[in-house]
Amino acid sequence: MTDFHRHPKSYHHWQLQIDGDIAQLRMNVDPNHPFRPGYELKLNSYDLGVDMELADAIQRLRFEHPEVKVVVIGSAQERAFCAGANIWMLADSTHPFKVNFCKFTNETRLSLEDASRRSNLKSICAVNAACAGGGYELALACDEIHLVNDNNSAVSLPEVALLGVLPGTGGLTRLVDKRKVRRDRADVFCTMAEGMRGKKAVAWGLVDAIWPKSQFVEKVAARAKELAATLPVKATKGITLEPIRGKKSETGYAYTHVQLDVNGATRIATLTVRGPEGPQPKSGADYEQAGSAAWALQCFRELDDALLQLRFDHEEIGLIVLKTRGDRNALLAVEKDLFANRTHWLCNEILAQMARTLRRWDLMARSMYALVDAEACCAGAFFELAIGADRVYLLDDDQVAVAIGPLSNGLLPMSHGHTRLQNRFLAQPEHASKLAAEQPTLPAMEADEQGLCTYLLDPVDWQDDVRIALEERASLSPDALTGMEASLRFAGAENCDSKIFGRLSAWQNWIFTRPNATGEEGALTRYGAPESARFDWRRT
Amino acid sequence: MTDFHRHPKSYHHWQLQIDGDIAQLRMNVDPNHPFRPGYELKLNSYDLGVDMELADAIQRLRFEHPEVKVVVIGSAQERAFCAGANIWMLADSTHPFKVNFCKFTNETRLSLEDASRRSNLKSICAVNAACAGGGYELALACDEIHLVNDNNSAVSLPEVALLGVLPGTGGLTRLVDKRKVRRDRADVFCTMAEGMRGKKAVAWGLVDAIWPKSQFVEKVAARAKELAATLPVKATKGITLEPIRGKKSETGYAYTHVQLDVNGATRIATLTVRGPEGPQPKSGADYEQAGSAAWALQCFRELDDALLQLRFDHEEIGLIVLKTRGDRNALLAVEKDLFANRTHWLCNEILAQMARTLRRWDLMARSMYALVDAEACCAGAFFELAIGADRVYLLDDDQVAVAIGPLSNGLLPMSHGHTRLQNRFLAQPEHASKLAAEQPTLPAMEADEQGLCTYLLDPVDWQDDVRIALEERASLSPDALTGMEASLRFAGAENCDSKIFGRLSAWQNWIFTRPNATGEEGALTRYGAPESARFDWRRT
Repeated sequence: MTDFHRHPKSYHHWQLQIDGDIAQLRMNVDPNHPFRPGYELKLNSYDLGVDMELADAIQRLRFEHPEVKVVVIGSAQERAFCAGANIWMLADSTHPFKVNFCKFTNETRLSLEDASRRSNLKSICAVNAACAGGGYELALACDEIHLVNDNNSAVSLPEVALLGVLPGTGGLTRLVDKRKVRRDRADVFCTMAEGMRGKKAVAWGLVDAIWPKSQFVEKVAARAKELAATLPVKATKGITLEPIRGKKSETGYAYTHVQLDVNGATRIATLTVRGPEGPQPKSGADYEQAGSAAWALQCFRELDDALLQLRFDHEEIGLIVLKTRGDRNALLAVEKDLFANRTHWLCNEILAQMARTLRRWDLMARSMYALVDAEACCAGAFFELAIGADRVYLLDDDQVAVAIGPLSNGLLPMSHGHTRLQNRFLAQPEHASKLAAEQPTLPAMEADEQGLCTYLLDPVDWQDDVRIALEERASLSPDALTGMEASLRFAGAENCDSKIFGRLSAWQNWIFTRPNATGEEGALTRYGAPESARFDWRRT
Repeated sequence: MTDFHRHPKSYHHWQLQIDGDIAQLRMNVDPNHPFRPGYELKLNSYDLGVDMELADAIQRLRFEHPEVKVVVIGSAQERAFCAGANIWMLADSTHPFKVNFCKFTNETRLSLEDASRRSNLKSICAVNAACAGGGYELALACDEIHLVNDNNSAVSLPEVALLGVLPGTGGLTRLVDKRKVRRDRADVFCTMAEGMRGKKAVAWGLVDAIWPKSQFVEKVAARAKELAATLPVKATKGITLEPIRGKKSETGYAYTHVQLDVNGATRIATLTVRGPEGPQPKSGADYEQAGSAAWALQCFRELDDALLQLRFDHEEIGLIVLKTRGDRNALLAVEKDLFANRTHWLCNEILAQMARTLRRWDLMARSMYALVDAEACCAGAFFELAIGADRVYLLDDDQVAVAIGPLSNGLLPMSHGHTRLQNRFLAQPEHASKLAAEQPTLPAMEADEQGLCTYLLDPVDWQDDVRIALEERASLSPDALTGMEASLRFAGAENCDSKIFGRLSAWQNWIFTRPNATGEEGALTRYGAPESARFDWRRT
């Protein structure tokens, strides 16, 4: 089991320091603490372990330190801000690990942008020294980039020139789509190993400001203060995020509200999520008191962890079967209270966490089928999970119902900005709006009529039909399914986030498998070696 | 040299019949006329040669038959509408050929949609029998799909289930983005080898209408008539599209207005386009009289041909150097007349042809550098070619100027809908609007100040700097450049067309190289063989 739990007290690679409404998050990667043995993390280069700590730091700022308005992301090393993802780690990783590593680091950077957009936690990147590849991609995910002007420190994306691969964490997309750097300048910058610095980096829009070395710390601090002064106070005291601890058994993983059963032989995993039991917080103050044990937060943090276990430790699983359990009314009651208190800082954070977990679900490169059976609790955010799946199988039974909750109207957006109802009913936008506004609870047959399931199955056929459906799916080409699902799940809109996953990941997927990158004479393989790479020059 | 010239009189695979304002285009593939030896084109399956004829037919309808308002695309075979791209041809092709074949067929289908949007030439697909894979993707590119209801004829996308690859001609994108089919239904449909027919195909939005076999021809004809009656008369008589004939020599290809020099050793090609010489048509009637010899039409048809030669016959070329030649004022005068007559049917067609060729240029999977030197004619549509390139090198010389013409304000859109000026100046939309509105002619230094070049070079440095720039580009990983260029060229917007190229092509690129598709035991390799495919089940 991969342990995704991290805590600032035991970080190996980052220093988190809070000073009033400003946090300092400094990268100081310990070369001798790689995620797995075999490489050294020199020059603040990173691997999955380093990024887990970064993801944790952003989470803790949001939940434990609502008093923080601005986070300054910097480096505690003099010689390097960050050298990007560690090349030797990449060269030494399997293809699925590389792809999942990139996906996780992308989600971490998106969570930083999400914090800015949704929680008004702004970020300033203080680039005090060389900043290459994934280092600059981290900077690009911040609201502002400040670069030291010392005739030496540059920002760069040297992947194409040095490694024969693409920047894997949204660098290309953020350059032209987010920062709107002119495409020919982006072309020049992305093919320059040495990168760019000084006034030109500002003029080209690669960074927002440059400061002389002697004034750098002071100028960045002043800017952080100035920015913080424009932002509202959210709260003075946060909650404590207790660790999420799943128990691994021979058959899978058990959490409090989530159960994941993994069957390597059939290549099918069953994911069971459970709704709230017992009294739940009603007000913002109640949530502050309940802390991270509140169902709404714990359930989705557990789900997040379970999805990551699947990604990293169960590559062979091709199909996830979703089951929902619990009391629909209890779940909807929790959502109504969260909705009513959505401007309360903690309720807002919990809703944002639910949304992020749902997006992680949407982005699983596995097939997902939701089974809505007699014991199902297909309501609210669990209904979002169901229609986030590739198919919904609904049992035609009196006990079965589907309930749309108050969060489906925009609080849980997909990566490309649509709600899942809008995405489902692209051809009938007014139907999506009506369902979102009316929040009906629909008996099975009516849910089918309203387009909320793929198949409505008779109880007599249920077991056989479902079994056959699962077997059929698990028999298909895993590559073709990954490409197909990525193409069908997100229709009708596109933004920076969805381009990063839909477009960049696809290109990177291809490039990583090509001999020009990872073959014996490929650029990634030969990085740092005396001989340079040899290419098959054919363009496609 | 690949001969892209086709003519209805010598089609092997299609029948084009004009009856007043309605054209019948019937597929009747001759199994014994494959594009290259080694496979039979059974069941109306297609290859590059079949698609060249389709592309030609659409072109001729637009230019030679402006009286046609509706084209009915059908099949002359009883047993098959179209079985899609020929599997044995695909299994037997190199990776670059497969990718370029898909790109060409995609452009052909987009030209059908372009004809509908831009020339009011509507298309009805008459699916009289089984319609699979690329056959259904052709149907999806039409304005309407009519399916025979005979308990037998289905539409299908069997690629995922049978071949372990994706539908390669926009099928997935058009299903959910164009036809807005619900994503879970699209998921079901795209994993069903047998496809769907009858009322369910209508209910799911896969086709627009079904008709009993006995009434099929009559009902489709009635609908074509009905549709034609709603459309305006464009003209009663067209022009003749004379063949484009390039001469191939040892060093490249020579056309009247276009020259392509290919250097396999440096992997650099030089593309020279020449502006108009001598008197050019001024009015719509002049253009009708001049026919396809008018510079504006012939130059861009020649350029189209040259780009296709590069794609199919020169995979090793990584960099295209663009040179423009001719008289700027003469070129701008032609564009002013075309602009003034843009509602004239033929001027509209010529403008649409220029736009399509420019999009083919944007979509070259090669690096492109524009050199604007002392003899350059960087004006109007040639300026569009220049800023469509990845970089523009501008000589700082008194004779050199850059001129924006009247077509840059929306008549030559990129695939994603932006003008090239909008795409270039995403950060300054008002600057893009100003340049498009004012159409200035700017001396080199001013052009640089206005952001119209990447580098302004001193005459003393020109030769060395350009030489080094070309050498550097040609030394980089071809795969990484392809992915990088695809990511940087189209920012700020996305639509069906650009998703097909940006997203689908990337996934397909990857899937085609994977052992699960093209390995010895892959699904594409083993199609039709007694043993079924064996997969590496790992998901990424």
